[in-house]
Amino acid sequence: MADLSWYGAPEGVDVGTVFATRQEAMSARVHRVLQAGIVGSRDNGAESIVVSGGYEDDEDYGDVIIYTGHGGNDRSTGRQIKDQSFDTYGNAALVTSVLTGAPVRVVRGRSRHSPTAPTAGYRYDGLYRAEHWWSETGKSGFKVCRFRLVSTAVDYAMPPALSVSSMNPEMHPAMHPAIIVSTPAGTAVPVRVSTVVQRVVRSGAVVEYVKKLHDHTCQMCCTRLSILGRGYSEGAHIRAIGRPHDGPDTTDNVLCLCPNCHVMFDNGAITVTDDFLVQRDDVNDSPLRLVAKHEIDPRFLAYHRAIHR
Amino acid sequence: MADLSWYGAPEGVDVGTVFATRQEAMSARVHRVLQAGIVGSRDNGAESIVVSGGYEDDEDYGDVIIYTGHGGNDRSTGRQIKDQSFDTYGNAALVTSVLTGAPVRVVRGRSRHSPTAPTAGYRYDGLYRAEHWWSETGKSGFKVCRFRLVSTAVDYAMPPALSVSSMNPEMHPAMHPAIIVSTPAGTAVPVRVSTVVQRVVRSGAVVEYVKKLHDHTCQMCCTRLSILGRGYSEGAHIRAIGRPHDGPDTTDNVLCLCPNCHVMFDNGAITVTDDFLVQRDDVNDSPLRLVAKHEIDPRFLAYHRAIHR
Repeated sequence: MADLSWYGAPEGVDVGTVFATRQEAMSARVHRVLQAGIVGSRDNGAESIVVSGGYEDDEDYGDVIIYTGHGGNDRSTGRQIKDQSFDTYGNAALVTSVLTGAPVRVVRGRSRHSPTAPTAGYRYDGLYRAEHWWSETGKSGFKVCRFRLVSTAVDYAMPPALSVSSMNPEMHPAMHPAIIVSTPAGTAVPVRVSTVVQRVVRSGAVVEYVKKLHDHTCQMCCTRLSILGRGYSEGAHIRAIGRPHDGPDTTDNVLCLCPNCHVMFDNGAITVTDDFLVQRDDVNDSPLRLVAKHEIDPRFLAYHRAIHR
Repeated sequence: MADLSWYGAPEGVDVGTVFATRQEAMSARVHRVLQAGIVGSRDNGAESIVVSGGYEDDEDYGDVIIYTGHGGNDRSTGRQIKDQSFDTYGNAALVTSVLTGAPVRVVRGRSRHSPTAPTAGYRYDGLYRAEHWWSETGKSGFKVCRFRLVSTAVDYAMPPALSVSSMNPEMHPAMHPAIIVSTPAGTAVPVRVSTVVQRVVRSGAVVEYVKKLHDHTCQMCCTRLSILGRGYSEGAHIRAIGRPHDGPDTTDNVLCLCPNCHVMFDNGAITVTDDFLVQRDDVNDSPLRLVAKHEIDPRFLAYHRAIHR
């Protein structure tokens, strides 16, 4: 299994802890290098980033950070002198974080200008999820890599939307703290949008391991989605975790699926027989794609069939 | 547009409000019928349910409810005398709620046995998301329809997982409030599982409208997923909503996509030209599927292309 032990919450460090120097933050395993703003790898994603109030293109809203990648700047002046690239290691790591959902530790450096930054030193501000990546032309005129990060503390505490007021988004703005967007054509006043969560895809160390074993190839339809050279897949727990199914988070209870087959499987529109035949309506049975090192326990398949008869 | 005005938070009713009778709850538009436990339609999903402590198969954990559908019981004795069906209107409505993510109002009726129920009357307990549906053999021996509902107040406030402790799930149990599962083979002690959110799919009134216009057929690959006779699709905002893109939540900024094309589009692995040609690596351009009544603004497509060059 990939070594993910450096990812996530640092042991024994509370959110809000301030370190006087980057050396101290490094010793506490919060941000494990002295210079770079991003620690991580293209393979596993970003471990941690330092948000420093000095960067001209960053936008720090507290729970939401619009973070600018690295590269392309002159070492002596710090100025942007060429385009940034998503292939550069730290930017590549953050793209991977978007695709896996793995949380990123955020450290804020001191700034006199940013109300969200500490007045001195480096503060560990908890885990964020990298939600979106894209490029823009920065203030310098060169291309910069951009990332939207959202605190896991507020990430999905979304408003109770599709409410009676959702046809009239000007009502109850206090109910919708998370997203502010422009109004539909006709009004110029920014209003808050009602969204609801249609579906949540979860991951974790066990799921990531299974996805890598299959190199992100769907075990049902053999689709392999590719994004910037990375495979994209999802892990489906066969016997669902959580109440009341209480399936285990173990590799023999996880399938590597494309998003389409994942939705169908979770809703019982696809089932798998004990001898690993994929069954769905209107389509002939096909064999489940199997690989060495990934045994699947047929008892979980039987449980899934039983509840979706 | 479908009339969704009955869905979501009832105007002027705080969470925790207790009604002495179902008539009062009905007048307040919290649960708009006197007898049935589920209000809603197969087309739009469930508006509200009443959880009554008396039902032998329900399991009420507060923020998580394992709810049993209706039908199959003898009118005079209340006993289950035949199988329940997901085609029955209320159960069908809850299946639709799972697929759309539309929130469901939860009302709890009095019970002497349930610590989560009020001691008298009917209490409005806020919005829940129906997350999963399946069938089981109930205590009666007949098939019952089951639903897992999770409070939107805690829904995605998931633990900061993939942490340093994630390889040793016995550590920091307090960090993982949401999901308790069996241990991997070898231990019998239930432990809490570390999961992270890989991806969140959002919906809302505008997205639901666009999905219905296309009858859930993907505008890019023409896939139409079908679950229990319902189409399943996702709405993609072309210019993303939220900071810093601030795209509008309007139909001319939304595409109806299958989950696979949705992931690829959100990550820039698919773009669309101003004349509605779908472009992706290694595949020839294909026309975007268009329908009357759904105009798409090419300026949003241009924005999407610009940030994913």
